[in-house]
Order: sequence, then structure tokens, then C-alpha cells
Amino acid sequence: MKAVVLEKKDRIAVRDMPIVGTMGPDSVRIAVRNVGICGSDVHYYTHGRIGPYVVNAPMILGHEASGVVLETGANVKNLKAGDRVCMEPGIPDAKSKASKLGLYNLDPGVVFWATPPVHGCLIEEVIHPAEYTFKLPENVSLAEGAMIEPLAIGMQAAKKARIAPGDVAVVLGAGTIGIMCALSALAGGCSRVFITDNKAEKLAIAGGYPGVTPIDIGEKDALGKVMAATGGWGAEVVIEASGAPQVYPGFADYACPGGKAVLVGIPIDPVPFDITKIQGKELDLASVFRYANMYDRAINLVSSGKIDVKRLISKVYPFDQAVAAFEHAARLEPDIVKIQIEL
Amino acid sequence: MKAVVLEKKDRIAVRDMPIVGTMGPDSVRIAVRNVGICGSDVHYYTHGRIGPYVVNAPMILGHEASGVVLETGANVKNLKAGDRVCMEPGIPDAKSKASKLGLYNLDPGVVFWATPPVHGCLIEEVIHPAEYTFKLPENVSLAEGAMIEPLAIGMQAAKKARIAPGDVAVVLGAGTIGIMCALSALAGGCSRVFITDNKAEKLAIAGGYPGVTPIDIGEKDALGKVMAATGGWGAEVVIEASGAPQVYPGFADYACPGGKAVLVGIPIDPVPFDITKIQGKELDLASVFRYANMYDRAINLVSSGKIDVKRLISKVYPFDQAVAAFEHAARLEPDIVKIQIEL
Amino acid sequence: MKAVVLEKKDRIAVRDMPIVGTMGPDSVRIAVRNVGICGSDVHYYTHGRIGPYVVNAPMILGHEASGVVLETGANVKNLKAGDRVCMEPGIPDAKSKASKLGLYNLDPGVVFWATPPVHGCLIEEVIHPAEYTFKLPENVSLAEGAMIEPLAIGMQAAKKARIAPGDVAVVLGAGTIGIMCALSALAGGCSRVFITDNKAEKLAIAGGYPGVTPIDIGEKDALGKVMAATGGWGAEVVIEASGAPQVYPGFADYACPGGKAVLVGIPIDPVPFDITKIQGKELDLASVFRYANMYDRAINLVSSGKIDVKRLISKVYPFDQAVAAFEHAARLEPDIVKIQIEL
Amino acid sequence: MKAVVLEKKDRIAVRDMPIVGTMGPDSVRIAVRNVGICGSDVHYYTHGRIGPYVVNAPMILGHEASGVVLETGANVKNLKAGDRVCMEPGIPDAKSKASKLGLYNLDPGVVFWATPPVHGCLIEEVIHPAEYTFKLPENVSLAEGAMIEPLAIGMQAAKKARIAPGDVAVVLGAGTIGIMCALSALAGGCSRVFITDNKAEKLAIAGGYPGVTPIDIGEKDALGKVMAATGGWGAEVVIEASGAPQVYPGFADYACPGGKAVLVGIPIDPVPFDITKIQGKELDLASVFRYANMYDRAINLVSSGKIDVKRLISKVYPFDQAVAAFEHAARLEPDIVKIQIEL
Repeated sequence: MKAVVLEKKDRIAVRDMPIVGTMGPDSVRIAVRNVGICGSDVHYYTHGRIGPYVVNAPMILGHEASGVVLETGANVKNLKAGDRVCMEPGIPDAKSKASKLGLYNLDPGVVFWATPPVHGCLIEEVIHPAEYTFKLPENVSLAEGAMIEPLAIGMQAAKKARIAPGDVAVVLGAGTIGIMCALSALAGGCSRVFITDNKAEKLAIAGGYPGVTPIDIGEKDALGKVMAATGGWGAEVVIEASGAPQVYPGFADYACPGGKAVLVGIPIDPVPFDITKIQGKELDLASVFRYANMYDRAINLVSSGKIDVKRLISKVYPFDQAVAAFEHAARLEPDIVKIQIEL
Repeated sequence: MKAVVLEKKDRIAVRDMPIVGTMGPDSVRIAVRNVGICGSDVHYYTHGRIGPYVVNAPMILGHEASGVVLETGANVKNLKAGDRVCMEPGIPDAKSKASKLGLYNLDPGVVFWATPPVHGCLIEEVIHPAEYTFKLPENVSLAEGAMIEPLAIGMQAAKKARIAPGDVAVVLGAGTIGIMCALSALAGGCSRVFITDNKAEKLAIAGGYPGVTPIDIGEKDALGKVMAATGGWGAEVVIEASGAPQVYPGFADYACPGGKAVLVGIPIDPVPFDITKIQGKELDLASVFRYANMYDRAINLVSSGKIDVKRLISKVYPFDQAVAAFEHAARLEPDIVKIQIEL
Repeated sequence: MKAVVLEKKDRIAVRDMPIVGTMGPDSVRIAVRNVGICGSDVHYYTHGRIGPYVVNAPMILGHEASGVVLETGANVKNLKAGDRVCMEPGIPDAKSKASKLGLYNLDPGVVFWATPPVHGCLIEEVIHPAEYTFKLPENVSLAEGAMIEPLAIGMQAAKKARIAPGDVAVVLGAGTIGIMCALSALAGGCSRVFITDNKAEKLAIAGGYPGVTPIDIGEKDALGKVMAATGGWGAEVVIEASGAPQVYPGFADYACPGGKAVLVGIPIDPVPFDITKIQGKELDLASVFRYANMYDRAINLVSSGKIDVKRLISKVYPFDQAVAAFEHAARLEPDIVKIQIEL
Repeated sequence: MKAVVLEKKDRIAVRDMPIVGTMGPDSVRIAVRNVGICGSDVHYYTHGRIGPYVVNAPMILGHEASGVVLETGANVKNLKAGDRVCMEPGIPDAKSKASKLGLYNLDPGVVFWATPPVHGCLIEEVIHPAEYTFKLPENVSLAEGAMIEPLAIGMQAAKKARIAPGDVAVVLGAGTIGIMCALSALAGGCSRVFITDNKAEKLAIAGGYPGVTPIDIGEKDALGKVMAATGGWGAEVVIEASGAPQVYPGFADYACPGGKAVLVGIPIDPVPFDITKIQGKELDLASVFRYANMYDRAINLVSSGKIDVKRLISKVYPFDQAVAAFEHAARLEPDIVKIQIEL
């Protein structure tokens, strides 16, 4: 089968690969349709590694996928051939302690698409466990289905923020994940969300959503705006989605006494934390590692119209232009949110 | 000053009464503008009592109020003359254990408007503590401001439901409070809300909101609809807002395993509870007594456009037709949500 | 193999039965050693059914078990032959939605020992999934190991009570489960626990634990004692462990404003609930269905000495006197907490 | 009245000062009896300041106090002359938003004993609000009463850790506050607590408590011990109580997936945080600023015998040797936990 293969750093090819895995009674065989390109795919392409994960052998890319069911195993009841679906890319050991606790994303045994040496889903067909395959409602397109994966990260952040109805949130960083956090926080109960960045194009996209107020961190008094809007109290929820080291000493300034902060951005090295500032407001901090039990919730919010991910799909390339798609994504243009490949 | 006085059961008069209270350094004097008529006001009017609370002397009615600040005490910093405000009607003893815990609504010493023998706010001017007086944003009208009180009850229910982003909710009962619960649950993070009732007029009003699906409990398979919409799983949140005894044995049927139910409706007598059914899903139940720390949140959600209360104001009577307003409210017409009096 | 078989209502035999199940790579074969007799075992014996669960064919009894590992499957790493263990008796479908959420006790597909038609563990050897088999520390005996199952129910109640350090608890009902709840609440953070019953023998056993204060509900002012001990405030945690219908209208009286109640007792029919009383204190209620992720925690608390279950083992019968053991248990003597059978 | 006055850096005198404040209807006048010397008292003595708080004028020291009620205001119902009490040293503005939320410790308007320019309680008599004055049970001595203040910090940490029954905790740092955290975590639901330090004397004191396992961080494999004791899983709760900068990059190593860490220690400067390590386990972090609503809980746990603070009182000086007491405390001897002054 045709697949998008990262041969090695800087070299992608569309070429034949065998289907990964074999059908079992709880499996589903799926024709892949839309696959979003994630920053991690690009990073493997341009750097050949992410931290300890090194591309030592050709690897199929992609983990943000939707498709159409071709075949189902004997035990599968909730899906049938022809169903339009999206697929959660990380499969844990269901018998692990983390999985038993409902924290399956934290199971060290998770097998995750396109994380070396595990192949991803940019291939014509995949075999996947039924319990990690989610049927799309009629009003959710396959393109939207491939957006559920990044949205699930924003949802995980919003869930871990334990939003109370009417909270104000500040999201630091308007990249794809920052926007997903903002949309999730807004749909998840916030009355309004501020989002900061230093790129006007990203702020324009984020600020296009009703309820999201962009703040250019480079030019304006971001903190003052949030304080003015909250009567000097601060935001109940702060979501750090930039991963930029210079953001960490000050993120607590945006929070109200007793507020919550969620650490979503991933800085490479340790960053400076001002503990006394955090203690002075007795903040609670949460952190996010991918997501668990979020796909159905994310799909519901897209289906109900509370979250619009369509406008974040900046461009869709056909399968045979996959290399061009990756080259485009690697240019990191500020007005690009998500590039997809359509099979 | 002119006031709407319940002289005794079945007898309301608009007549002169002295202003209640005296100005202190933390007080605000307010010209009352809009006052909603609550079911409790009507019940005192038609029955002369609610449970242990008996109208033994003439009492000013009303507790859902907005107004304009006329004068502020020396310590008041956040308000000034001319500010448009709404007022939280229950004032606790700030030194009580409940208040120190942040549960000021549960302080037995709460003094609450229009709960005998305490006068209400249907009078030209009131003196109120500044910390229970909330400035309205420019885009929130005085009529909307007087809707914050019933909305705060829905918000308290939504907060106590500990909604996770994307939850599905079922609200049982589409009266004013049921609708407020539905809107609060939707704004507070639910992907969609089902609301049940047996009155078509009420369902039509509730169902007019995007995201709210009405179910006629009399004619149709309410439970089946919820189960079909949730893949047989059930709703994460059930809000009982009817107070109807026949609802209690079965409310748990709507809930999913590990779900939550919130008891908002107030049945007069003990009701039958099916403990094994509740245990079989290991449900958590919460209950609601008025609200605490909800006014600013409710105002924020109205101001941000996430909750529209305007369309629930069925009719506004001028102050001199207050008796007619109460007579109208007492007819309990099914298409009437909220009647207000404008001073 | 020899097994204790409930042939039909009122008829138990110790006779040969085949071992249940087959070894797989994740399985453990265990020589059963201590098995506690639960009220449900007795109820199947004396009534032939519990609600919808009917004994239509001979069934091996018992689900509270410890043993010694004989053999482990190829994938099993944490256990080896010779390990002393106790076994969690309910095995869910790990792929179910409830399991993925960490609520595996609520999976409708749970297969639970000695719940018709599933055989129990009163047999010389059992084959069990490794992830539901827990190694006992050196200082925890096999007899104590067989007490972990009922303790886990008390632990589940204590966990769902979300105890804050120093809370006061009231447990209603001093049967085996009531005592387990009291010990779990005390070890789980309460400063003191009151326990009520009308049987002096049970109260004497419960009251023998430091920190547990027995109250005879028949003769004395139970509520007054709790109120006096809490300065009139009430208990932060109330655990209903009696299942007695007459307890339900009043359990909320023991609770403080903003308190929590946990429903552990299992009344057969719907019981009367005083909603307004619950709302007046805005109580949160939780319910318990068996337990999830509690075995390791319960073992830790026994091993650390914070919970002493040894003194609750009233009598141990040898395997060949299993019928006598069941007859004894069926007499429901008030000074008997737990009868075990030793293989 | 005689008082212990910090005249300026390095200079303490016992001399006459007027009583602070005036009696009101909600006040209590108290004869001070036992006052513990806190690290902050010592720091003002030896440095003349703590961060932004500078001793610019003579200030009475002390904030950990017990005493005997001499006189009560007209509204005070729960206390009477002769009652033995301890006093919470921080008084918030009850009308502030933080106070209304139950977060009165976070009110910027808090007036706290012995924080410049506010006088402390090392004076013969103090006038104090009744709602921040707590009656001691008969079995709690005045010396123990003066230990409630530091214990309350440990309790706040334990509460914010949201301990589930049977959790394992690791406390980093065995100073006074570290020990208080360890005792609170143990009483608050943990099955066992590890405590680390590099001073043998401190570890000996902490390790003298059943359930607390000391680990010398300088010589031994602290992390390996915790991992071995938890089957490689890690501790559910980590409490950072050292404030030592070198501890922060690694504290997350002790935690289990999905665990919680509480930041109690107060490092002066920003410290390095390894965000990816925290995210890899998706840890939740909480922080502590003093305490709120903890005094009654702490007293209950001392009274019930679950927490023994007596053995932490290293030495008691009479009032006229207060200067010697402070000189002793300033030597920071490793085997000294708490020095008290008795009036």
C-alpha cells in the first residue's frame, strides 16, 4: 500500500509499505481519508528526532486521522463497514495500573502512531482497535474528523482546568494547540477567553472566534487588559500553551487568587518558576500529556456546533502531493494553522 | 416611599413604606428599577406562607432586582452614583463558620429579601451592602440585570454538577428554573442539553435555544431519546428541576455510569428514592440551596452572549400596575416564563 | 478439585468440581487458602437468589479470598510461584467505556465470583488475571488478606466521601461493612468517627477501636451526641451503611452544612428521601458499587498498621467443616463479624 | 503591658507596650500564655526584613499563640472568660471577594501578627476577633495550643494534596514545617510517609513517628527507596517543604503517574522547573499560602490523638528569658524543632 514514509531526516517519500498489524476480533480495518500534519511530524522531518525519540529506520508519518471503516472484527458491535470514523492514535496496555485508573495516556506502554519506532497512519489502510475508533456524526466531515486529535489536547487542558461556569481564561500562545485550548475553554464553560501571542496572523485567526479576545504580547499591556476586564481580580484559568521559556516567570500574574494554571506548552529545558508568586495566590497547577477519554467529548462539541474546527484547516493537499504538503508545513508560515493530506 | 406590600394572603397594595435599613460605610443606596416576580413571591401572595415562613405582618415583596446607584458609603470603592447594578438578595453573617468556608448561602443567619419577616425590594429605594451589589456591563440591560437572580440558581446547579467539557445533560422540568439550569449547563461546558416537561409551551420556549433539545415526557420515549443520543451510555449530568414526586424514582435512569445528578426541584414531602438504581451506576448527587459567589459569573455569561435571558422576560408591567402583574403571575400560564415590574 | 458448592437453596456440599478457566499468558494459578463468608454468600444459601440473580444451577460460593501463587503466565512480571496474594473478585471487560474511564466496577460486563451463574473461589485452586491479584506484604497474613475484599468497600466509601484531613464522620450501621467504613474513614483522614446501631454487641466491637465512638440508636440521643461533639455544626461526612429504610429520612440531620453523605447500605425497595432537608444543607451525596482500584490501598493501610482487620475475624473453620461454617454464618449472631474458611 | 519587642535588626527587648486594638462586640480579650518562635520571627530578628516586609519601627514579635480568655464582647457566644484558646493570627476583610469565596488567607487585606508594620502577640494581653479564636478541648494543653499555627500549614498542604485513603506521600525537607506536613499527610489519609533531609537529627525526630520513614538524602538512594516501596509506581503525593533550589528539578521523580505535588517551601528566587518531566506524569501541583479554615481541624486531630505535637516542643523559656529564647532559636540547632515562650 501507498504510504508517506520518512526515510530519514529531511527525506520523505510516498511509496509502498505493508499494512501495519493484523485483524483480530476487536479490530477495525479502515481506509484512511484525512490526515493532519502535526508539528511533531514536521519536527521528525526536519530534525530526525524529538528528544529521546530518534528516527533510525523508515517510518510512516501521521497520527491525526479520519477514515472509513472497511471491515470489523467479530466482537465489534458499535461500528460497521462504511462508517465514517476518526482514530485515537495511542493504544495503551489495558491491563496496566495507569489504564485501570483511567489514566491510560500515562501508561508507559502506550504505542503511539508516528513515534519512532512505531509507524503512523499516512497509509491507505490501517488496522485499529475498535475501542479507539470513533464514529463521526453525519454533520461532522472527514476533514473535521482529522482535527479531533489536536482538539483533544485542548480538551484535556480544559478538563484539567476544572472550569467553573463563567470562569475567565487566559491562553498564552496562539499556535494550533493554543487555539484548541482557547476553543475548548470557551466551549467548556468559560465566559470569555483572552489569548496572547506576538504574531498578528495567529492572533487574527484566534480572535476571529466570538468570545476570544486576542492580545499582542509584543506591543500592548497584556496583563493590564486582563486585569481591567476582571475588575483587578485576574483570570480563574491560565493555560500556558507557548512553551516559550520567557513566559514561565510571569504566567501567574494573569491568575486570580485561588486560580488554576495548566501547563500545555513543552519547553525543551527546565524553565524558571517563581514559587513565591504562585504561592501568594495559592494557585493550583495542572499539566497535560496528550489526552484520555476525550475523543467522544471533542466530537460532541464539534457536532453540536460549540466548536468550529473547519476554519482552522488552512490547506488540504492530495495524497500524491504529500511531500509538498510537508514542505509547506515545514515553512511554519504564521497564517497556517493546519495542513491536511487527503487520501 | 412607594412599595409593593403583601398586606396578607391574597391582598397586595402599592403604598408608602419607609426605606429599609440605614446607610453605613460599606452600604450603597440604590434606586430600584426592574424586579422579577418569582414563584415564591406568588406563593406568599396566594398561600400566605411557604412551609415554616408565614406572612404575619405586611411585607414588601420581591427579591430579583436591578437598579441604579444613588449614593455610596465611605469605604465603597467599586461602585459610584449612576452605576447600573443588580443586587444579590441574601446577606449572611460574614463571621459565621459557613461564610468563612465560602458557603455563605448555608449560613443559618442569612437575611433574605421577601422571606418573612424580612422585607423585599419592590420599593423605590433600597440600602444594600456593596459586596452584594454588582455593576452591570454596558451591554447588559436593567431588565436582564433582574434576571441574574434566577439565573444564579441555574448556575449554582451547573457548578455543583462539576461539568466536564462536552458532557451531555438532561434537565427534568422546563419551568423558569429548569430553563435556567439548561442554559447554565450549556454555557457551563455541556455539548448539548435535553429538557423534559409535559407542557408544550414550556418545551417550545426551552427548545428555542440552540443546543437545547426538548422532550415531551407525556407523549414520547424520553429515556430512549437520551440513550439513543448517547450511544446507550446515558447523560453525564442529570438536573432534577421539577420537584414533582413522580420524577424521583426514575431520574437515575437518564444518567451514565459514574454520572452526576443535581437536586434543584423542591418537593414538599419526602419522595421515593431507588438507592440500588443509584448505586448500580455509582452516581454522585449534589443539591442546591440558592447560590453563593454566582452573580459575577452569571453577569459575565450574559454579557459575553453565552446566555440569553432577554427572551425569557415574558412581560414587563409598570410599577403602578404591580397588582395586575402579580395577578397575571398567579395564573401560572404555561407560556409565561418571567414577569417583571419596572419602577 | 474439592469445592464448596451451593447445590440449590438451603443445600451446600463440599465436593469435586473442575478448576474454572484456563491459564493464559496474563493469568495466575493460585492455591486458595482463606475465604471469608459474605452476607451475599449466606443470602444465596438461605434464599437462593439476590434480586435478579437466581441460583439455577450448582454454584461454587465465595469471593473474599487469599491464596498462594502456584504458576504464572508468560507475561506476568510482578508475581511468582510462592507469593502470598489476595484476589479481587470482579473482572471487567478492559475495553469497555467504563473501564477506560477508570470506573471498571461499573462495567456492565463485569464477571464477579459467586454471582450466578459465575462460580466463586471456594475451591482448591483458581485461575485469575494477574492484574487483579495482589501480593501481600510479609506482615499481612493470609487471613487478613481475605479481609481485603470487604475492607475495599469501606475504602471505596471513604474515597467517595472526599474526606478532608480532620473531618468528623458518622457511620450509620455497625455491621461488617459499617465497621469497614468506619475504619476506612478514620484511616482515610477523619479525626474521629461515630458509629450507630441498635445492637450492643456490634457497637462493642466497633467501639473497641480507638477513635471510633459507638452510639446506641435505640436508647440514646444519637444526633445530640454528634451535634455536641461538633459544636452544633454536624459531621462533615455521613456514611449510610445500614440499608434500613427508617434511617433514610433522617440521615441528613447528622451532616454539617456543605457536608457529604455516602450511600453504602442497600435497601431492597425505594426509600423516602427528604429533599428539602438535604438541600437546606446543600449536601453532596455519593454512592458505592463495590470498588475499583482499592485493593493496593487497602493492603497498604493494613500493612502500615493503620487498619486492624484481624480482630474482626470472629472464627475460622477448616475446609471440611465448610457446611458448618455456613450454618454458623446463617445464624446472623450479633457478635459475629466475619467467619472464614481455611483451605 | 510587657511585650517582646524587636526594636530593630538584632535587637530584642522585653518592655512595656500598650495593648493592641480595642474591644468590640465580636472581640475577645485574652491573656497570652504560650507563644512559639517561628522561623519568620527569627528572620526578622537576624535580618530585619523578609522580602518586601521591612521592620522600620519597633514591632512586637510572635504569631503562634495560646491563652486564656479574660473578657468577651456582647455578641460572642461560643467563648467565655476562663476558656483556654488558641488564636489564628491572620484577620482578613470579611467583605472581600477572596473571603466570600472561602479563600480568606488570600485576601490582600489580611492583617497578620508580627508582619511589619503589624504587631504580634508576644505581649501579656491581646484583643482578637472571636471567630479567629478557638477553644481548646480539655485534653489539649496550652503548649500544644501554640503548636496549632505551624500544624495548620501542614494541614493546608495535606488538604490541598486531596489525599485519597491509602496514598503514599513523600515530604521533601524535615524542618518544622516538613514534619507538620508529614504528620498531617499521615493523619489525613496516607498509609505511610517518607521524609527526606540531609540532617540526621531532624530525620531522627521525624522518623520517631510510626508511619514516617526517614531518608537521608545525602547518603542514600532516596528515590530508589520510594520506588521500591511502591512497586516502581511512585508516591501519590509529594510535598516540597524544603524551599531548597536544588530540590525543584527532581521532585517530580518521586511522584506516580497522575500524582500530586504540593509546593510549601519558599525559595527566595525563581527555581528551575522541568516541565516535560511534570507533564510526562501529568502531575497536578498545588501551592500553599498559610491556611484557611484549618484551626478547628488541626485541634481535632491533636485532641483525638492522631497527631502528637508535644514531642516537637524542644524547649520552653519563661517570659523574662525571651531574649535568650530568641538567641537560642537563631542558632538553628538541627535537633531543635520548636522553642516556646511561656507568659
